[in-house]
Amino acid sequence: MSYGKAFGLWRGACPGPWADYTRHAFVQGMADGSLPRAQFLDYLVQDYRFLVHFSRAWALGVVKADTLAEMRACSATVHALLEGEMALHVRLCAEAGIPAEALEAAQEATGTLAYTRFVLEAGYSGDFLDLLAALAPCCMGYAEIGARLAVEAAPDTPYRDWIETYAGAEYQQTCREVGALIDAAVARRLGPAAETLPRWHSLSQRFATATRLEAAFWVQG
Amino acid sequence: MSYGKAFGLWRGACPGPWADYTRHAFVQGMADGSLPRAQFLDYLVQDYRFLVHFSRAWALGVVKADTLAEMRACSATVHALLEGEMALHVRLCAEAGIPAEALEAAQEATGTLAYTRFVLEAGYSGDFLDLLAALAPCCMGYAEIGARLAVEAAPDTPYRDWIETYAGAEYQQTCREVGALIDAAVARRLGPAAETLPRWHSLSQRFATATRLEAAFWVQG
Amino acid sequence: MSYGKAFGLWRGACPGPWADYTRHAFVQGMADGSLPRAQFLDYLVQDYRFLVHFSRAWALGVVKADTLAEMRACSATVHALLEGEMALHVRLCAEAGIPAEALEAAQEATGTLAYTRFVLEAGYSGDFLDLLAALAPCCMGYAEIGARLAVEAAPDTPYRDWIETYAGAEYQQTCREVGALIDAAVARRLGPAAETLPRWHSLSQRFATATRLEAAFWVQG
Amino acid sequence: MSYGKAFGLWRGACPGPWADYTRHAFVQGMADGSLPRAQFLDYLVQDYRFLVHFSRAWALGVVKADTLAEMRACSATVHALLEGEMALHVRLCAEAGIPAEALEAAQEATGTLAYTRFVLEAGYSGDFLDLLAALAPCCMGYAEIGARLAVEAAPDTPYRDWIETYAGAEYQQTCREVGALIDAAVARRLGPAAETLPRWHSLSQRFATATRLEAAFWVQG
Repeated sequence: MSYGKAFGLWRGACPGPWADYTRHAFVQGMADGSLPRAQFLDYLVQDYRFLVHFSRAWALGVVKADTLAEMRACSATVHALLEGEMALHVRLCAEAGIPAEALEAAQEATGTLAYTRFVLEAGYSGDFLDLLAALAPCCMGYAEIGARLAVEAAPDTPYRDWIETYAGAEYQQTCREVGALIDAAVARRLGPAAETLPRWHSLSQRFATATRLEAAFWVQG
Repeated sequence: MSYGKAFGLWRGACPGPWADYTRHAFVQGMADGSLPRAQFLDYLVQDYRFLVHFSRAWALGVVKADTLAEMRACSATVHALLEGEMALHVRLCAEAGIPAEALEAAQEATGTLAYTRFVLEAGYSGDFLDLLAALAPCCMGYAEIGARLAVEAAPDTPYRDWIETYAGAEYQQTCREVGALIDAAVARRLGPAAETLPRWHSLSQRFATATRLEAAFWVQG
Repeated sequence: MSYGKAFGLWRGACPGPWADYTRHAFVQGMADGSLPRAQFLDYLVQDYRFLVHFSRAWALGVVKADTLAEMRACSATVHALLEGEMALHVRLCAEAGIPAEALEAAQEATGTLAYTRFVLEAGYSGDFLDLLAALAPCCMGYAEIGARLAVEAAPDTPYRDWIETYAGAEYQQTCREVGALIDAAVARRLGPAAETLPRWHSLSQRFATATRLEAAFWVQG
Repeated sequence: MSYGKAFGLWRGACPGPWADYTRHAFVQGMADGSLPRAQFLDYLVQDYRFLVHFSRAWALGVVKADTLAEMRACSATVHALLEGEMALHVRLCAEAGIPAEALEAAQEATGTLAYTRFVLEAGYSGDFLDLLAALAPCCMGYAEIGARLAVEAAPDTPYRDWIETYAGAEYQQTCREVGALIDAAVARRLGPAAETLPRWHSLSQRFATATRLEAAFWVQG
């Protein structure tokens, strides 16, 4: 796994949910192009709502960090999300016929509420590591899906743009950095044998639950 | 409405979701006795998981309160939940053939995660009023369902015990007190014309979203 | 140390601040009776403000706990503080000529703000262990002072009541239970060699800073 | 007041503490050049520790915001603090003979603990407005001091650089924007007559307490 050691272990501890998420019918439908357009647009709208809370969760990372380096890494992500990715998302939606007002007005679906509030609550009730463990499945899952679909997807799938975004060098680099942030944060707090501690099990559970909620996120309502 | 002014207004502002929740097929199935036993037991298990987080949310109320009276009211609820209601729940489940270990080991369903984390996150990110607005649909909805079903339910429904718990004088009194707590907390912060403020709209939204998540809670998986 | 293993180690890691706190001139003045009454009354008023936030901090423990046993232990403390200790405090102050309204109206001194907000922020930003490490110096420090002064204090010191409260069997038992709660919470998360982890150092720092702030609390303004 | 309506009212409600803070002997000593260098350096070191928590508090603003505009304003501040102001601070300290390691290693003084934890706890326990009311005295107080001292200070005071930083167009503009952010946030939640609500009083209190803690911050230890 190029996204770090902790991610590799957490992923390996929940193979079923991880496959349900990253090899979901929705994902396979993007790969072979069979995913109905309307379903993709519903997903895009909920994903916009998700990004708002995802930005808030990374900002909570700044609050919960122990070092300036951790603060800076989280702040850079918030900045990139709010000033870059969300504007991109708004433009993609506009091109797909969804105006910005519709994004703001859209009701959050249950799956969106479940996933976003789970991550934020994990961050509030736990510490920096709990927050990162809940954030990891989203970051790295999309990187893994993008990388796989860049190879496997039908050449003419209409979802090529989406795939390239997450397969692209920039997103892949971001995820390697997030992986390194997590590994350093774990080592800094729990030492070199972190995975032998009971604490590891609860982090692993946070990751697994977030993965389950990611799987449920693809198709809602 | 005997459960306070704020509750009455919030409830009146989301008639559709409120009916979906309090007149859900699951509820009607308890009333006429047609609800399959297995479905009720699944609900009981998730409701146990819910009570854990519900207790945590009321404890967050103690942290977020402004006055000793507010702190005491929230603390009394936490105490009653942890020392009374949860023990009762464990006994009811045991009688129904679900041992305590099964309750602890049960995986939280998506709807349980969605509802409980929404309430806790509302409390963490907002203030005392946001927390109370998110808690109210659960407290008062069960009181309203209990009171209605005590009159309407088939005499021989096997769910008579559940109905009597929430129709009972003690639970009804608790909900009148929660209603009074909310009204006093609103007046203390927002004054006598609270419902004319933009702040009221966001509280009303918190209540409506929690109500939607209550409706989804009855039947999961 | 009869107040648990973690407490013993944390205390042993900051001998200077611990002595500054538990052997403060204010404490010695209670022992030999030389402490001016007015200074004691100022302390009592600030201690009342402290108890409000101390109750909130223990309630945050309920929110941050991982198990029902941890939730119950914290909730019992909140309940005891709000329904017992604070009423006792109000009565003692009334006997000393400070009416309840004066307690509520008193401005929080800088040292009170520093200590209470440090504990609450440690709990919010960290996890359950960070909160307990910040709470421990208050609980156990008073127990240690009480036990020592019960033996060493002048027989006729006018502060005999204060001393007996904290030397008494009930308070001592409470602190042994808090010590056991901490040790179990540490073992449950960090395993049997918790003190070898980097995480231990940051917990130890939380304890040391809280101890420093306790020392500054005795005499303010 | 060019820093907004809410700030003007909050400031006007605590004239004594505001004068204690902005016309503190330390400030006057920078104006006439009589402030001992060593005292200024002690202040700089504590101010560095303060900036770390100040950045965390603005990040909490992103988490607690209601709109994208609010999130972006807070995130821009975090970004500017972490990527600009703190680096500048480190350089100024280095020029003054305080290496970066000394800044990181410095123990937080009681006044630094009191002020930073008060702000963060206000943000955690309250809502977005509570956080802003606690942050405002720092932002705007420095702007006011800078603007006044740019006119009044002795031409040859060695603290001319410090004065110019806060009197400068960039910092003044930032504070006008923070003032506008606060006014918009108040109007968005509490409507056009916010200052007639009981909620206003508690915000005003948050501001006044933060102002008191700012005054105590200048000279510590």
